[in-house]
Amino acid sequence: MKASFYTSLLLCGSLVSLNTYATQHSNTQWVDTFIGTGGDGHLFPGAVVPFGMVQLSPDTDNPMRGVSPQPEIYKRCAGYHYDDHTIVGFSHTHFSGTGHSDLGDLLIMPMTGEIKTTPGSAENPEAGYRSRFSHDKEWSEPGYYGVELQDYNITAQVTASQRVGMHKYTFNDADAGHVLIDLTAAIYNFENKVIWSDIRLIDDHTLVAYRATNGWANNRQMYFAIEFSKPISDYNFINEDDKRYRCMDCLGKEKHSTIENKAVKIAAGKAVKFVASFDGLKDEPLYIKVGLSAVSRSNALENLKTELPHWDFDKTRADAKAQWATYLDKVDVEGTKSQKRQFYTALYHALQAPNIYQDVNGQYRGVDGEIHEGKGFEHYTLFSLWDTYRALHPLLTIIDPDRVSSMVQSMLVHYQQSYENMLPIWSFHGHETWTMIGYHAVSVIADAYLKGIRDFDIDLAVEATINTANNPVYDAIPQYKKFGYVPMDILPESVSITLEYAYDDFAIAQMFNAMGKKQLAKEYYARAMNYKNVFDKQTGYMRGKDSKGNWNPDFNPEAAKYMGPFTEGNSNQYSFYVPHDVAGLIDLMGGDDKFEGRLDALFDTHLSADMIKEHEDIAGLIGNYAHGNEPSHHIAYLYNYAGKPWRTQERIRQIMDTLSSDKPDGLAGNDDVGQMSAWYIFSAMGFYPVAPGDLSYAIGAPQVEKVTLKLAKGKSFTTFAKDISKENLYIQSVTLNGKPLTRNYLMHAEIINGGELRYQMGDKPNKTWGTAHSARPPALSKYKE
Amino acid sequence: MKASFYTSLLLCGSLVSLNTYATQHSNTQWVDTFIGTGGDGHLFPGAVVPFGMVQLSPDTDNPMRGVSPQPEIYKRCAGYHYDDHTIVGFSHTHFSGTGHSDLGDLLIMPMTGEIKTTPGSAENPEAGYRSRFSHDKEWSEPGYYGVELQDYNITAQVTASQRVGMHKYTFNDADAGHVLIDLTAAIYNFENKVIWSDIRLIDDHTLVAYRATNGWANNRQMYFAIEFSKPISDYNFINEDDKRYRCMDCLGKEKHSTIENKAVKIAAGKAVKFVASFDGLKDEPLYIKVGLSAVSRSNALENLKTELPHWDFDKTRADAKAQWATYLDKVDVEGTKSQKRQFYTALYHALQAPNIYQDVNGQYRGVDGEIHEGKGFEHYTLFSLWDTYRALHPLLTIIDPDRVSSMVQSMLVHYQQSYENMLPIWSFHGHETWTMIGYHAVSVIADAYLKGIRDFDIDLAVEATINTANNPVYDAIPQYKKFGYVPMDILPESVSITLEYAYDDFAIAQMFNAMGKKQLAKEYYARAMNYKNVFDKQTGYMRGKDSKGNWNPDFNPEAAKYMGPFTEGNSNQYSFYVPHDVAGLIDLMGGDDKFEGRLDALFDTHLSADMIKEHEDIAGLIGNYAHGNEPSHHIAYLYNYAGKPWRTQERIRQIMDTLSSDKPDGLAGNDDVGQMSAWYIFSAMGFYPVAPGDLSYAIGAPQVEKVTLKLAKGKSFTTFAKDISKENLYIQSVTLNGKPLTRNYLMHAEIINGGELRYQMGDKPNKTWGTAHSARPPALSKYKE
Repeated sequence: MKASFYTSLLLCGSLVSLNTYATQHSNTQWVDTFIGTGGDGHLFPGAVVPFGMVQLSPDTDNPMRGVSPQPEIYKRCAGYHYDDHTIVGFSHTHFSGTGHSDLGDLLIMPMTGEIKTTPGSAENPEAGYRSRFSHDKEWSEPGYYGVELQDYNITAQVTASQRVGMHKYTFNDADAGHVLIDLTAAIYNFENKVIWSDIRLIDDHTLVAYRATNGWANNRQMYFAIEFSKPISDYNFINEDDKRYRCMDCLGKEKHSTIENKAVKIAAGKAVKFVASFDGLKDEPLYIKVGLSAVSRSNALENLKTELPHWDFDKTRADAKAQWATYLDKVDVEGTKSQKRQFYTALYHALQAPNIYQDVNGQYRGVDGEIHEGKGFEHYTLFSLWDTYRALHPLLTIIDPDRVSSMVQSMLVHYQQSYENMLPIWSFHGHETWTMIGYHAVSVIADAYLKGIRDFDIDLAVEATINTANNPVYDAIPQYKKFGYVPMDILPESVSITLEYAYDDFAIAQMFNAMGKKQLAKEYYARAMNYKNVFDKQTGYMRGKDSKGNWNPDFNPEAAKYMGPFTEGNSNQYSFYVPHDVAGLIDLMGGDDKFEGRLDALFDTHLSADMIKEHEDIAGLIGNYAHGNEPSHHIAYLYNYAGKPWRTQERIRQIMDTLSSDKPDGLAGNDDVGQMSAWYIFSAMGFYPVAPGDLSYAIGAPQVEKVTLKLAKGKSFTTFAKDISKENLYIQSVTLNGKPLTRNYLMHAEIINGGELRYQMGDKPNKTWGTAHSARPPALSKYKE
Repeated sequence: MKASFYTSLLLCGSLVSLNTYATQHSNTQWVDTFIGTGGDGHLFPGAVVPFGMVQLSPDTDNPMRGVSPQPEIYKRCAGYHYDDHTIVGFSHTHFSGTGHSDLGDLLIMPMTGEIKTTPGSAENPEAGYRSRFSHDKEWSEPGYYGVELQDYNITAQVTASQRVGMHKYTFNDADAGHVLIDLTAAIYNFENKVIWSDIRLIDDHTLVAYRATNGWANNRQMYFAIEFSKPISDYNFINEDDKRYRCMDCLGKEKHSTIENKAVKIAAGKAVKFVASFDGLKDEPLYIKVGLSAVSRSNALENLKTELPHWDFDKTRADAKAQWATYLDKVDVEGTKSQKRQFYTALYHALQAPNIYQDVNGQYRGVDGEIHEGKGFEHYTLFSLWDTYRALHPLLTIIDPDRVSSMVQSMLVHYQQSYENMLPIWSFHGHETWTMIGYHAVSVIADAYLKGIRDFDIDLAVEATINTANNPVYDAIPQYKKFGYVPMDILPESVSITLEYAYDDFAIAQMFNAMGKKQLAKEYYARAMNYKNVFDKQTGYMRGKDSKGNWNPDFNPEAAKYMGPFTEGNSNQYSFYVPHDVAGLIDLMGGDDKFEGRLDALFDTHLSADMIKEHEDIAGLIGNYAHGNEPSHHIAYLYNYAGKPWRTQERIRQIMDTLSSDKPDGLAGNDDVGQMSAWYIFSAMGFYPVAPGDLSYAIGAPQVEKVTLKLAKGKSFTTFAKDISKENLYIQSVTLNGKPLTRNYLMHAEIINGGELRYQMGDKPNKTWGTAHSARPPALSKYKE
């Protein structure tokens, strides 16, 4: 019997033993941080701890000052791309799997020989400070990344705590070397990216820095404290700005500034860099610690001194790995090595964000730009809600319910601090980007509440939900309320918006129903039926409609025209977006068989090349089904609702076989801050939350032999997929805790109460299991009294 | 007998009565805020309270976006110039009398008719929002300014509390009107002045705004809360930026920002403006309140709500005036109306700065960029120390000693927060500009300590003084210590710097001597003699010397070449800069008579036109004597030290008669944050602090009949100039408290202990009074044991 993590803690009685244990036996060994760093996964391989504020990772390319031509930007949302062969440096903040980007704060690059202060290009790396590298001499594990920088023969290694990144540079054949800090480098970089920056040497081995940038967020402010393990032997401040800012009319009269920059050890401006030189590097590596804060330089210093008061890189690395082990060891997976690599890596990627966004003293910068203090909760940022409400947040309600409460409370204070009285839409680092559609924060809140996760301000949640869903300025909520749909002549993406509002309204209704607020519940259940107002019975499709009630005359269900009625998708896909009332949708489409036919048409009808070109952010196609983007994620499970669960079982296996692997390009599209990974985890276990807020999980088909989830209060939930194989992809029967389960869905309580879910697999569909109407996942009507 | 201010308070027993009293009887009536707004006085006529954070004043011109040609900038350091005929708006921060500039935060301009969003030019005001005005329809008093804006027939009036400005706009012939807030406007404006700004409507009559600017200070951050007395009927956000900052690669894909700017009521960028429109303006004026903060929008709102919770403009105006009355009524002056106007206006200008720089909740932004809380003292900013250590700070030690302690403590926390371990040089708004030379903060601290003003951290003062005077990176202190002077091949302005360091070292020595730190005192007394190292006995002048000991071969005592050995001056002037050891200087120059001759040569030898052109910031010339700049301010008093007090008496009258008036151009040069005004006040009373830190005041000649200073603890000090007239400019005799005073100086204690100083004036010099060696002001040797 394998000792659990907590047992080990008790037995060994020391953190060192714990770390050793974690390092040797943990499921962290199965994580391959390079999965998703190729293709369009947009993942990075660098060092993080679960939900950490720091993501310290190598950047292989991005548009940079003085580089021409500039590299392709979308490919490099995460700073790193597996196709690249040079590293420009290591920066401290990265998005995980996003389809748009920003960040890349405080790039650090070590070098030997001549000091270079511009990056050079991928084609001509010796023209600048960047270095070639090879995947042969690159290694990583959760919380750690290392690489040989070939051009300098430097072994670069990084690790991290929550708010501090730690670098270790071993100069293999030089006694003297340099470290460049390039405050002009960024991800999704462009002219005018840097609003202002400064960097200041405060003693012979410590710097503080500041940077405000534009980009996905406007005027995003970040502070840094940078500490070197050795005293700096020489240094230089570089200001590439063509404008001077001090005493602008005194150009040439520098005498009036009687302190010279080098003497006072500061550079400030829009294009600032710093180079430090060091001696005696043969004897011991150079270490660097970088503390981050969104509040102030002093907080960045305090974060650094509090979290990493020492210079022990190995301990920091072991601590980071131990943090990962506490999570990854909550889940035991049995399956092929490839499956274990994919599963644990997916779990690793599901635990990247939302990120802690609060200093050790409790302060954080709110969406109002003010400094606040998180009281009674941890403050998180980075809510990619259009993506993550679907499966990531439901996954967290199972594996980390305590943290869910803090995340909900973080969204509620965002609402309080928001001048628009809105819950977050797509927010990060104290900024709302207003990216994507819907108001899916309400889904996350309702789902948590309904699952009994309620350690947040409930009254505030009610207020925030109502004010968000009725906001007079967001998108076209007033028109949605007036017409029962968003007219296509008022707003683009009107059909997608209508459908997603309707689902969100269902989630709200469910919460109010559970709270006993029957009148409010009735109001939102009614709004949840608005999906019917954009269903055109003539064509049988969701279709744009104008404010006069006329259907879109230019209708093609494959069309995914930008600024058309659909969001990153077409009518074929969005016609299935009624997760909360699939039974109602089946009725609209003409019953179970016709619905099955429509699903098959989606999966089996190839998109024309022209149509593929039109689609934005669509990848991982099976016919019109686009696994690489979120609007498709629930669709394979919809056969269940038509009494055809074996068809879901086939589609899940088809998706798993064709669109997922344990290679760098193993993701069919953006991981989208863990949503794609959460889809994998649920689907591998055999169930999926089609409509968060209805407390059910549609049973698909398990893909791995066995999964044990270690839950709160010592409970565990295990899935067994007996006789699973390449051929045996069909469920023959299911038992839950030894009793036959004939319905094709699970309820949340059945998971978190612990137990055993046994699937008997076979090579032929069992067309009787889970097919009765009563066996299908609950629809909205079940909850409407 | 006139009831004193405090008696009145007791008798009337209410603040309203107090205000009424103040309004009707106060010496505020003698203040003409237009004095110094012409010529190069660089003063502004707008609304302030003593030492207030807000300076709300009309701006007549400055370089602005879209105006060509741009107006002359130096003339408009205070935003307003009396020569101008148009007003572009009212902004909330202004320097008082500086020779370089910045600020002009949050320009507000009312208008009627067509909305204009660009300023237009002075020549063509109707092209933009600016308006013509006339001095005939312009009026002001302390704490208040009003003007008719001719182009709109709007009566604009402004007043202020410490942290809040209040506007009153009476639309005389329109029912509808607009108010523009132009965040691109600034004083000393230039391209890239605005780093970032935003403005946000938070309800139908309130805005919050932010602006970070470059200029004299880098990345200076200011927050605003703006409240209108009426709801806004319509509004528009203007963003003149040619770059978009949100989602830079999504240009044309605005849909991704699903909240439109107008709907969410925000604009952010580098060229942002806002226009609000109002109805129903015929019935009542429009009022606007603007709260300032350097910390946050919420602090700006809190400042506004706390200081001005009401809309009573008249009360705010009366309160402001009452605050001025408490100061101006501390001094009773008898003299001509012109003298009273000049005296009280000088006193008014002496009380503008340093400014309160702390929010009502105690928070302020330090020179480290961090938010701090002032504990046990009020935090001040704006230390123009090269100017104000001379007479302004000594004046404050007499009329407001309590505030001096807070100012000293503010300089000490600046030292603590300074990364350079330096007391302020020329600092404002949390920024050190490093403008001008010396480390004169030590003079202010030592002078306060020596005068018994000690409600600050004495240990910290000792530490700060030593670390400042020995700073390894500031100017050329290490070389000054090594060579005993600053070599001219190391640093420009080397002679001026050497001389001013030597004086500062004297002040330090005096403080350490009084503290009983004899060893330290000895060290700094020795450094105070360094002036001798730049005195060339051959020529008899202070002269540049290189690090090898060679005198400047290119020497001309009139030369004031930029980046030469002198700071805004020449050797003729700086050869007299040994305020702390005039006796020693007289010895070097060959005795009393030769010294007198040298002084006469200074005053009587006209500078050639070529030389005048070379001089920077020099105005108010009498020969080589430049009353318009600080290095000359003590010189007229130096005849005293040579036993020729009647010559001082002549020169003071000569300066008063030729270089001072009660007209807008009545100042001979920049007021320099009250230094010129303080010179006037002291000189009018008949004495002047030649060497702050030696506790003496050289007696010049009184210029007004009678001055009574009401001092702490109910004491008062009165000067009487009996028989003073145009002809009777010479002192015949002096009594102090009825006893003959035969020395030509006063000690500080003799003033603050209260008493009567009676000068008997006559038309012929009394060449026996005050001429004995023992009668001359103390020199350094008196204090050296």
